Amino acid sequence: MIFSTLILNQDTPIYEQIENHIEKAVKAGALIKDSKLPSTREASSVLRISRNTVLTAYENLESRGIIYSIKGKGSFVKEEAKNDWQEVNIKWKQRINSYGQTCEQMDIIKTEPHYEKGMISFKSIAPEGNLFDVEEFKRAFLDVMALEGEKLLNYGYAKGYRGLIEYLMNYMEGKGVGGSKKDILITNGFTEGLDLILSTYTQPGDVIVCESPTHHTTLKMMKAYGLQVVGVPMDEQGILPEELEATIIKHRPKWVYLTPSYQNPTGIVMSGERRRMVYGILSDYHTPCIEDGFNEELLYSSSHIMPLMALTGESNHIIYIGSLSKILFPGLRLGWIMADSACIDTLESVKRAKTIHTSFVDQAVFVQYMKSGAFERYVKKAKKYYREKYLYTVEQIKEYIPYEKLWGEGGLHIFIELNHKIDTRELLKQCYRRGVLFMPGDIFEPSMKVTSSLRIGFARLKKEEISKGLKIIGEEISKNIIP
Amino acid sequence: MIFSTLILNQDTPIYEQIENHIEKAVKAGALIKDSKLPSTREASSVLRISRNTVLTAYENLESRGIIYSIKGKGSFVKEEAKNDWQEVNIKWKQRINSYGQTCEQMDIIKTEPHYEKGMISFKSIAPEGNLFDVEEFKRAFLDVMALEGEKLLNYGYAKGYRGLIEYLMNYMEGKGVGGSKKDILITNGFTEGLDLILSTYTQPGDVIVCESPTHHTTLKMMKAYGLQVVGVPMDEQGILPEELEATIIKHRPKWVYLTPSYQNPTGIVMSGERRRMVYGILSDYHTPCIEDGFNEELLYSSSHIMPLMALTGESNHIIYIGSLSKILFPGLRLGWIMADSACIDTLESVKRAKTIHTSFVDQAVFVQYMKSGAFERYVKKAKKYYREKYLYTVEQIKEYIPYEKLWGEGGLHIFIELNHKIDTRELLKQCYRRGVLFMPGDIFEPSMKVTSSLRIGFARLKKEEISKGLKIIGEEISKNIIP
Repeated sequence: MIFSTLILNQDTPIYEQIENHIEKAVKAGALIKDSKLPSTREASSVLRISRNTVLTAYENLESRGIIYSIKGKGSFVKEEAKNDWQEVNIKWKQRINSYGQTCEQMDIIKTEPHYEKGMISFKSIAPEGNLFDVEEFKRAFLDVMALEGEKLLNYGYAKGYRGLIEYLMNYMEGKGVGGSKKDILITNGFTEGLDLILSTYTQPGDVIVCESPTHHTTLKMMKAYGLQVVGVPMDEQGILPEELEATIIKHRPKWVYLTPSYQNPTGIVMSGERRRMVYGILSDYHTPCIEDGFNEELLYSSSHIMPLMALTGESNHIIYIGSLSKILFPGLRLGWIMADSACIDTLESVKRAKTIHTSFVDQAVFVQYMKSGAFERYVKKAKKYYREKYLYTVEQIKEYIPYEKLWGEGGLHIFIELNHKIDTRELLKQCYRRGVLFMPGDIFEPSMKVTSSLRIGFARLKKEEISKGLKIIGEEISKNIIP
Repeated sequence: MIFSTLILNQDTPIYEQIENHIEKAVKAGALIKDSKLPSTREASSVLRISRNTVLTAYENLESRGIIYSIKGKGSFVKEEAKNDWQEVNIKWKQRINSYGQTCEQMDIIKTEPHYEKGMISFKSIAPEGNLFDVEEFKRAFLDVMALEGEKLLNYGYAKGYRGLIEYLMNYMEGKGVGGSKKDILITNGFTEGLDLILSTYTQPGDVIVCESPTHHTTLKMMKAYGLQVVGVPMDEQGILPEELEATIIKHRPKWVYLTPSYQNPTGIVMSGERRRMVYGILSDYHTPCIEDGFNEELLYSSSHIMPLMALTGESNHIIYIGSLSKILFPGLRLGWIMADSACIDTLESVKRAKTIHTSFVDQAVFVQYMKSGAFERYVKKAKKYYREKYLYTVEQIKEYIPYEKLWGEGGLHIFIELNHKIDTRELLKQCYRRGVLFMPGDIFEPSMKVTSSLRIGFARLKKEEISKGLKIIGEEISKNIIP
């Protein structure tokens, strides 16, 4: 009998073991077409298991087309039917549309050299996890679960968790943002916020103006949506107003995308005066602007600077995307869009067609954590920690790197423009061979052209790594300089 | 002096109070252009606060353009500059592209009548939160936070949390899914899974074939992406194979979308034999298929039925989207795509351009919960609970509703086809006046045509509500029947 060779183990459900056993026997030719299987009663008695288990196995085998049954007669081996089907081999990589192609071609995880153990990587701008106050986070979790656990685990609303929306309304008011018709939508981080806006308000071929260089992920997303990206240069005060105005006149863009505070990758903080000039230009030309509130909280030295949105009053052309999760719990993926309520109303529908809503547990825990006062303590601690590393990194750059300009006054990275025309893409290849990684400037260029700039992220590196890594970069640079 | 009228309160940061005070004075004309403000020293002494606080306030006022300062001379009132700017009023609702327009027009939260307190709503198919094992969830949370809290709160990977991917690989193997080149991507629920696929592999105008009626959100998303949706009718066994084949021959669709188990809205479970036939057709015509694994776990009576994907072997034309979060913790928004590894590789890049990754805390807690054995206990409890409600609802429908067909054999809802040609959209209006809500069949129709069908969700209603609500629907139906 077929089951005499079956020894049951403890690790797999018994019905599965029976299925596998019979399937193998059929495939191996041990059971041939139309041969009768043991009755469920026989099998259960031989294997000392319940009849139901055998029944389940037989039913599964039947639904998989391996056996068939005739009422009152029993179960029989069917021909292996799988062989009837053609093997289908879709060439998935050839089916990708232009959106998907750009997402893949500009995916730096795929295109940039990979970190390997023992290397020194200046690539990342992720925060240092040791600084996170896990205990306070746990407390916040237990508090909200005790209060409304069942509710948080069930479906929520696309717009977001009410407590978090109210908290952020207040938080934005603290940044000087007022006006009666503004509203907030909670998103899965900055990235979803931008995706919602681009997917709703753009058409392929539209022009979008941004700072040059700019945030790589934004660049990738704009290009994936088929937008024509036009970069405008910056100085230490931020984007150049005359150039911005000239570009708007020339290209009549549908959008401008700006990161006024702590711009990525340069770290430039747009001055108050420049903000007012830029805002004036946007207003004169009635040009909508996506304002990226990137890491505003992590400035070391500047006083609290108002976002562009604080200048709007009752105007509605600025859409602000915020994300505290860049420095605080990026693993949670929480962000928000603040905009005119008519705009939020539409984006809420789009969100419902993309991700339904953002995790309600995460939202509730997050706001509870924020309200506990832990955030202020964290920012204080983080600023001190990163400032020290920042100053050390600057010192080491001055020691080893022949730079033209050193940008940035805060955050988790420094942007360097070398004082020689060295292709930093090539430089990276050389440094990689010596175990050092950084972000070459070309990935931040709207034109994608080669640059002699690079971004150095330092948040998670030890001092000795920073020093050693910069020394190697410096050495490789000097090899490229023909005296 | 300007500060003699300022009384400081405890609730707002002092620098803000100073800012507001001066801003108001400027606006009210109490401080005129170019008048000098008290020095920071004077102000700090009058207000008995630190000089730094005054400095912060003045700096903020300066960056907002309300005052200016001259080195060595002090701070002065600038003209209110806001008035220079034009008020910009973008007509956001007119700027929406066709994608956004469809998302909004087909957003049932906006188009369907709203629940008001005291009504009986059969609209929802959300699970009953009382069944959730919050204690077990908390335990899982504390376990994973203790183990790797800092890691989980920092950036993770687009593909997903490794522990969850491995768990789901195993889980899918338990459903009979094998093959060497399959891989998994974690998503923010089913919806993001479908969004990733549609945004990567479709072009406006492409034909997609589905069961008719079908899941409303899917229908909305397909139409938003500009796809031509062609519905194929079903019988009790599932989609009709001859019709499916004829449709494929006629339209040469890029995709087929199917929900073989517990189809939404009908609740039909495709039989094993039908699955094999459908799979055979998909293979014959090399047609890729998105398989929606909707609520497979909640079948009351059928034995464990294999997904279509279990038939693939080394073929790669089926993409499976799974989501346990429909019945278990929908608030977390967790789902996954299982597909050919080349396909997952691309979708991973697209995910990185849309939401970076799904909350790592949620993923880790979820898999810890699943591994604890709590899921099996929950499904057992939930099945019993919903089965009882289901049977009661069926009984009450038989009592009150003149139906032609009653679909479904599980889950959290029942689909009714009335035995008279009654426009259920009109019927809903009548019932709404009497405080009863349901989902009229038209929202599930690819053609969006009026139907005489309706969906009854019962998961969160009390027995007396179910009975009372169905009685009212029955009464309104009888008013529409001309004898």
